[in-house]
Amino acid sequence: MLPKPIWFENNKVMILDQTKLPENCVVKEMKTVEEIWQSIKKLEVRGAPAIGLAGAFGVYIGMKNWTEKENANKNDFLSKLIEIGDYIDTSRPTAVNLHWAIERMKQKGKEIWQSHLQKEMSIQMMLQQLLNEAEIMLQEDIEACKTIGEYGADILDNISGFKAFLTHCNAGALATSMYGTALAPAYIMKQRGKEIKVFSDETRPLLQGSRLTAWELSQSGIDVTTICDNMAGVVMKNKWVQAVITGADRITKNGDSANKIGTYSLSILAKEHNIPFFIAAPLSTIDFDMETGEEIPIEQRDAQEVRYFGEKQTAPSNVSIFNPAFDVTPHQNITAIITEKGVAYPPFSESLQALREGRKPKSTESIFKMQKQVLKTAKSIVASGLVSGTFGNISMIDRKKGFVAITPSGASYEDMTEKDICITDLEGNLYLENGKRPSSELPMHLAVYKQREDIHAIIHTHSLYATVLASQGEKLPAVLTEMGLAGAGEIEVAAFAPPGSKELAYETVKALGKNYACLLANHGVVAGAQTLDRAFMVASIVEEGAHVYYLERQSDNISIVPKQAYEAVFKAMQQYGK
Amino acid sequence: MLPKPIWFENNKVMILDQTKLPENCVVKEMKTVEEIWQSIKKLEVRGAPAIGLAGAFGVYIGMKNWTEKENANKNDFLSKLIEIGDYIDTSRPTAVNLHWAIERMKQKGKEIWQSHLQKEMSIQMMLQQLLNEAEIMLQEDIEACKTIGEYGADILDNISGFKAFLTHCNAGALATSMYGTALAPAYIMKQRGKEIKVFSDETRPLLQGSRLTAWELSQSGIDVTTICDNMAGVVMKNKWVQAVITGADRITKNGDSANKIGTYSLSILAKEHNIPFFIAAPLSTIDFDMETGEEIPIEQRDAQEVRYFGEKQTAPSNVSIFNPAFDVTPHQNITAIITEKGVAYPPFSESLQALREGRKPKSTESIFKMQKQVLKTAKSIVASGLVSGTFGNISMIDRKKGFVAITPSGASYEDMTEKDICITDLEGNLYLENGKRPSSELPMHLAVYKQREDIHAIIHTHSLYATVLASQGEKLPAVLTEMGLAGAGEIEVAAFAPPGSKELAYETVKALGKNYACLLANHGVVAGAQTLDRAFMVASIVEEGAHVYYLERQSDNISIVPKQAYEAVFKAMQQYGK
Repeated sequence: MLPKPIWFENNKVMILDQTKLPENCVVKEMKTVEEIWQSIKKLEVRGAPAIGLAGAFGVYIGMKNWTEKENANKNDFLSKLIEIGDYIDTSRPTAVNLHWAIERMKQKGKEIWQSHLQKEMSIQMMLQQLLNEAEIMLQEDIEACKTIGEYGADILDNISGFKAFLTHCNAGALATSMYGTALAPAYIMKQRGKEIKVFSDETRPLLQGSRLTAWELSQSGIDVTTICDNMAGVVMKNKWVQAVITGADRITKNGDSANKIGTYSLSILAKEHNIPFFIAAPLSTIDFDMETGEEIPIEQRDAQEVRYFGEKQTAPSNVSIFNPAFDVTPHQNITAIITEKGVAYPPFSESLQALREGRKPKSTESIFKMQKQVLKTAKSIVASGLVSGTFGNISMIDRKKGFVAITPSGASYEDMTEKDICITDLEGNLYLENGKRPSSELPMHLAVYKQREDIHAIIHTHSLYATVLASQGEKLPAVLTEMGLAGAGEIEVAAFAPPGSKELAYETVKALGKNYACLLANHGVVAGAQTLDRAFMVASIVEEGAHVYYLERQSDNISIVPKQAYEAVFKAMQQYGK
Repeated sequence: MLPKPIWFENNKVMILDQTKLPENCVVKEMKTVEEIWQSIKKLEVRGAPAIGLAGAFGVYIGMKNWTEKENANKNDFLSKLIEIGDYIDTSRPTAVNLHWAIERMKQKGKEIWQSHLQKEMSIQMMLQQLLNEAEIMLQEDIEACKTIGEYGADILDNISGFKAFLTHCNAGALATSMYGTALAPAYIMKQRGKEIKVFSDETRPLLQGSRLTAWELSQSGIDVTTICDNMAGVVMKNKWVQAVITGADRITKNGDSANKIGTYSLSILAKEHNIPFFIAAPLSTIDFDMETGEEIPIEQRDAQEVRYFGEKQTAPSNVSIFNPAFDVTPHQNITAIITEKGVAYPPFSESLQALREGRKPKSTESIFKMQKQVLKTAKSIVASGLVSGTFGNISMIDRKKGFVAITPSGASYEDMTEKDICITDLEGNLYLENGKRPSSELPMHLAVYKQREDIHAIIHTHSLYATVLASQGEKLPAVLTEMGLAGAGEIEVAAFAPPGSKELAYETVKALGKNYACLLANHGVVAGAQTLDRAFMVASIVEEGAHVYYLERQSDNISIVPKQAYEAVFKAMQQYGK
């Protein structure tokens, strides 16, 4: 059964006393605003959303008790509500969420009072509307956490061979209203009847992992293993976890994420073991006023937390202690940020902003995949010898999304990484800032994509024999049957135009016609196709054909493939993927 | 002041009671063998070397007390000694070092008894000799630790900007007789008057780091900061430590090192932050019967160590606990292993064996780097198509150390590993036994290195067009401006000589002259330069030029680059790296 840290029942706020966990499971009934104040103060209720909800219900409880007093004057409704709210707010002055929740209750109180002035209502009705607001806040939080869980479970479901994830600290049901954030995917996986297992870092110095995370998961019947923080590396090495999911305390615009101390180390261990690393947090965690994690202040906590182990002193009194509350995980180490509004993939500066604006993030995941594919083809094509050094360029288009991924200008293929692949729209506008310029032949690629909707990938090479023919201005006849992949008959030569020019783009489209390849005078080859793999095939067969033709030319004995043979191949090529 | 865990004074064994640390510093006097037995049993004395010494002194104390009894019969000397030794051995049956120390005392006892049989001596004399043996063992341990400290301090001294190192668990004075292993460099640095600061992981679950390491360092006046294990990543990110040093429980032949759980994660964090990672351990830690770390059994310890925090239960009773005593750090993550016999650098299989045999390990660190570089270039050059199959060969020289690294004979580039790269001296003597023979063209490489001190890397290819010209005995004219990288004007052809012969070496040096490349008649190309990357460039431009020249020849239309153009490039090449 999923534990709830806070709920409302029979006109009482019910709180699970988290200071007694995991040894004892004590539920406390809160009947007065003072009891709620104490409960927040003593950390019996903890976690930003849960504290906020305690505050909201606290405002209601305070008002209810006040109205039941003999001398309560309905005209004091608003001033009393503000007084009660301000009082609760003093229980944890630094809790942003508590303050936010109380302000929302105050705002609701004002609205109720305005309605009352316009059309009088009973004090019971006014109280009921206050209670409704707190209930709505509770429901909203439950919904948000559940949605995070759904998104997270979808991701885990898609990891091949998924069995377990590792988490740190407690971003679970106990910190929210239900489900939690980092643990929500586990609860949803279980609800879906899927296999799920969690490894929980004990999380020094305050042990939220062993005290709370292990407790709430085991209460819900989820298989959980507690480890010391320094065992995470071995758990990953043993391939016991296929993902890491943690919460976050604050996320900056670029995706850098502050979370409980130790999260940064985990992200490095995950990277080393090729394990995806996820942050699960509501969108309210993202601080759009902060550019990067370097701006996040890191609170130093009391050294005694580390120096003492319960009552027993474990580190000498005269040694220094470093005890930061948080650390910052750089966005580069984060696979995705899971929010209640959707999943943000890198680059987070774009995807988080999109979620904020209620837009669907521009499938940065698919951009990422395109970059991967283009890089892979670039490496293959260098290995094949069709391009070398910094010559040639490769692109692909996602026609649905309108993105083109293309190799950068002047970069060596050997050192090229996925991030170096440039992303533009069909007009050539840069979509991602990656510090690179797209290949100077981008206009030619775009012209082909605009003219030829059946072409989704283009490879431009300077492969030797095709370039010799191109330099000599000689068309390449169909000397091989498979040359049907490149075109119906002769491969044309585009008239000379300067590299990178619009004229070259124009001449290329013209020479290409309905074919999948053409030569570029004094320059090289262009091959296009439905996929990068197919374009690679076309570029290869053009070079192979050019080589054979070059050698045949030596003896003036050139045999052309029967038309119907290469045309059959060409037709099959045209049908590919349809 | 450096704490001592065990010493001998006024006929008593003095033990620092480590169970009372760090709150109380209690020294216990041991006057009977039973007291020593209890002290080992209760972990008042801990750490393999310290336990061994307690056992050795225990044997003496037992014998001394026995002789003082009225009915002690000198003839029972040996049997009594064995009886006492066996008794002490039962205090910690799994302690390898305790057993070893007691066996050594028994052996000494036998020698004393033999001497006595040949030339009678007093019981006092016999006891004195026993005590001497224990004292020698103590001194040996102190010396070994001190030497480890000296080697370690030398290393730290050489790290630019060194301020502090990070350590894990306790491999300090408290675990040995004095100085410790991982902490010894800190004590020696302090003795040398150098700045030294240590960060100490608290080391869950048993907190040896905060209880013992922090205590002994602070006792010695060394600046120490205790952190939770999960803070190590941030300490590294903050650039607060410039090295990591830990001890080891067992090291296998290849350098894989078992140590306290958490060491593996630390090694990954160190790698991520480009911080060198050292193991400090006596040579006796190396298990030459084990090939790799995969053979090391990992003890699982009691779950209660993690489930309880002192008296307080912190993890629920029904959750699983994973509590391995050790983990294994793979040798790839280890910068060096510091022993009392010297410092072993990778490849450890060679260097550890050398230390074992009392040889000086052969500057294997620089060798390892050379092997890496040669292999990387070999793979790149195969990818470029300049060499194929098992042809061609690649070398570089470390002129300071006098080592040449060269690709092996008859090996395929695809399967080649770093270890396959052969290491010789300038006379061609094999320096490392790796089961491979150096390329048969070694004499040619060595001849070039001897003649041309400006050349530190050589690539010999059979690249196609250059080889065509070489076969035709035709010089390569400067058809491309960048050919200035290869030479001032024409690239000469070395007269024919059999592959691998001294004549070929002679002709190559002659044809090379002051240039950076020459052709070898009926054979291929030699390119030399200041670095491997530059030699690769030279080999590439020679092939490119040869190809262009070959194609131009077909139409007898050959255009040579103006002299001043390629000479400017050649002069820049001569100045490279100066």
